[in-house]
Amino acid sequence: MTSVEELGRRARAASRVLATAPTPAKDAALATAADLLVERAADVLAANEADVEAAAAAGTPPGPLDRLRLGPARIEAMARGLRTVAALADPVGEVLDGWTRPNGLQITRVRVPLGVVAIIYENRPNVTSDAFGLCCKSGNAALLRGSSSAIRSNVAIVGVLREALAKQGLPEDAVVLVEDTAHETAVEVMRLTGHVDCLIPRGGPSLIRSIREHATVPVIIDGDGNCHVYVDASADLDEAVAIVVNAKTQRPSVCNAAESLVVHADAAGAFVPRIADVLTGMGVELVGDDAARRLAPVIGPATDDDFRAEFLDLRMSVAVAADLDAAIAHVNRYGSGHTEAILTRDLAAARRFASEVDAAAVIVNASTRFTDGEEFGFGAEIGISTQKLHARGPMGLRELTTYKYVVWGDGQTR
Amino acid sequence: MTSVEELGRRARAASRVLATAPTPAKDAALATAADLLVERAADVLAANEADVEAAAAAGTPPGPLDRLRLGPARIEAMARGLRTVAALADPVGEVLDGWTRPNGLQITRVRVPLGVVAIIYENRPNVTSDAFGLCCKSGNAALLRGSSSAIRSNVAIVGVLREALAKQGLPEDAVVLVEDTAHETAVEVMRLTGHVDCLIPRGGPSLIRSIREHATVPVIIDGDGNCHVYVDASADLDEAVAIVVNAKTQRPSVCNAAESLVVHADAAGAFVPRIADVLTGMGVELVGDDAARRLAPVIGPATDDDFRAEFLDLRMSVAVAADLDAAIAHVNRYGSGHTEAILTRDLAAARRFASEVDAAAVIVNASTRFTDGEEFGFGAEIGISTQKLHARGPMGLRELTTYKYVVWGDGQTR
Repeated sequence: MTSVEELGRRARAASRVLATAPTPAKDAALATAADLLVERAADVLAANEADVEAAAAAGTPPGPLDRLRLGPARIEAMARGLRTVAALADPVGEVLDGWTRPNGLQITRVRVPLGVVAIIYENRPNVTSDAFGLCCKSGNAALLRGSSSAIRSNVAIVGVLREALAKQGLPEDAVVLVEDTAHETAVEVMRLTGHVDCLIPRGGPSLIRSIREHATVPVIIDGDGNCHVYVDASADLDEAVAIVVNAKTQRPSVCNAAESLVVHADAAGAFVPRIADVLTGMGVELVGDDAARRLAPVIGPATDDDFRAEFLDLRMSVAVAADLDAAIAHVNRYGSGHTEAILTRDLAAARRFASEVDAAAVIVNASTRFTDGEEFGFGAEIGISTQKLHARGPMGLRELTTYKYVVWGDGQTR
Repeated sequence: MTSVEELGRRARAASRVLATAPTPAKDAALATAADLLVERAADVLAANEADVEAAAAAGTPPGPLDRLRLGPARIEAMARGLRTVAALADPVGEVLDGWTRPNGLQITRVRVPLGVVAIIYENRPNVTSDAFGLCCKSGNAALLRGSSSAIRSNVAIVGVLREALAKQGLPEDAVVLVEDTAHETAVEVMRLTGHVDCLIPRGGPSLIRSIREHATVPVIIDGDGNCHVYVDASADLDEAVAIVVNAKTQRPSVCNAAESLVVHADAAGAFVPRIADVLTGMGVELVGDDAARRLAPVIGPATDDDFRAEFLDLRMSVAVAADLDAAIAHVNRYGSGHTEAILTRDLAAARRFASEVDAAAVIVNASTRFTDGEEFGFGAEIGISTQKLHARGPMGLRELTTYKYVVWGDGQTR
């Protein structure tokens, strides 16, 4: 099997070509890949079936098994995803700004691809084509390292993607797959300094920990979402019930679902018993501080870890805050920097919360569930960054680019 | 001594206040710090003298000793630097863009401080106030870890800076200094996940290697500059002589000095002997490939390592390229992604070089020495990034910020 380093070298070489590839060539490759995925669906599904059988035989539980399984509908969705990305505007070449210096030098700052984007991901084989689509459109080569359980599916999908690239005259190595899925190869990808410009992990806490420990290449962490909804003293309580229910229960397993409810003391008497009733009725288990529990005995006791937790489940922590300051302090203390919402009719409170809460997204009077590439209008998303360097929040095509200074002179020296 | 983790906690707490501090308060703190530095110059210089004596006794060579030594002029320069930064525009709060979604959600992207910026640096105590100035103006708390040789100077300077902050009602912990300069404390800073939002190393290759190995916090690498000047077939050769001389010799010890000269074969016959003569006459040692050496026997043989080297000295590698393609390939192969210049009268060649060369700055018909915060008009600079994530090229105030999405709704749910 090809070594990780050799794959890195190939991706780097391909990235040079892709960086200046015309938009129509990239779009044609994406459209061709979409067509070929549908055309070759039987091959991909056969490979996937082998993955699923092996995983089932190895005792994989139903959840992961379902995420691993493709089917005609998922193949169609992958193809549709590629066509959607092809239809988005090409971010490459945008002149971000520019100015002329007193000595006549004309400085322009131009958006360019990152180069080689590595993605380490778990299970879901559809990430293979989704990640390729975003990388290709933004002019990046993609170096993919999926899980061993999906290896047959990923090989089949990458084969189709590479064929599409070649058909459109682009380098096949604009997408390379690490086929050796031994644990060490993931670490090798994390340490491909010089070949990888950016690593984006798509996976759970153990992958993030491993990356923090081992990575020598620049990383964007797609981290936890311990998202809060803060119900202010002046909140519209009917609206607050609807938003809290939506934020907690509409899809509890995702990172922008709310995990914690913070209620202003002045609203707590009216709101906590009411929302506790509604959420409990929907099967949500509540844990909270003493003040919340006094108002709604159905709420169990919460530990400090509960307030820190990303439950990803029908469970929610509840805290009563003496005032806005206490609420902001609570959110900044326990939040993971993903999404924090305030529900209020008080403009000053909304502005203070928006300004003082430290998170990728602060949402006023709407559900936390809106922090999402599609919902933000990016057309597609490669992840949601919870770090502050480079990209914050949902990452679309723009976040897969960097910039370069192009300086025009006529003989200037210092 | 206070533990690194405790310093991180204090810096984090201070960063919450500084993030929303009004511009006039930050400017007043910078002005006060400048005044106090001059007022307390005697104390700072006494502390510095003790550092210099200890370093001299330990056998420190003249170069590093000079970088360590302050004096009334350097104190004045530090104060002037703080006043310059105070006069720059505050980047915080800029609305970068915004849009309204079909469901009525109004999304704005607002520039905010990074939070806590850690800087690990060597020797020069003036970095202490320079880094503080840029961090404070951009609303960040600064966690500083200087070298042991400068510890007395740094303690004295940080004392002045903290006093200035307190005088203007800002938290003293907006600048904290790691006073324990044991090797381990640098590594502790690199691993302060949760307390440090961005680490910027200012130091040599061994520091960068240590950071690649140990850091778990996001890092911006201020890396090597193996900068090329490429003299195209159509270059104005008089201008080319002036630019190459400037790029190589005006200040050979800095990262934007040119280290390598690449000459198009069609210009080589006229240019290589001429520039070899001029550079050799100025004390520059030249090493080159066979084609260059045939044209100018004064050029010694170059190894592959020579073409890779950042000499930071009066030494330069010379290569002859068969054509523009070969020149671009050479630059992309050996360059470090810092600054690459093309000298040409051919528009198509200039455009191709600008587009295909992968570097933070590509300069057409001017010296590589212009890649610099001051020369770019940033007013001040905290380093020059050679990585692609977040910031590329010279980093000023803007590069010490990130953004946050602020989303305004009126009850939206999914």
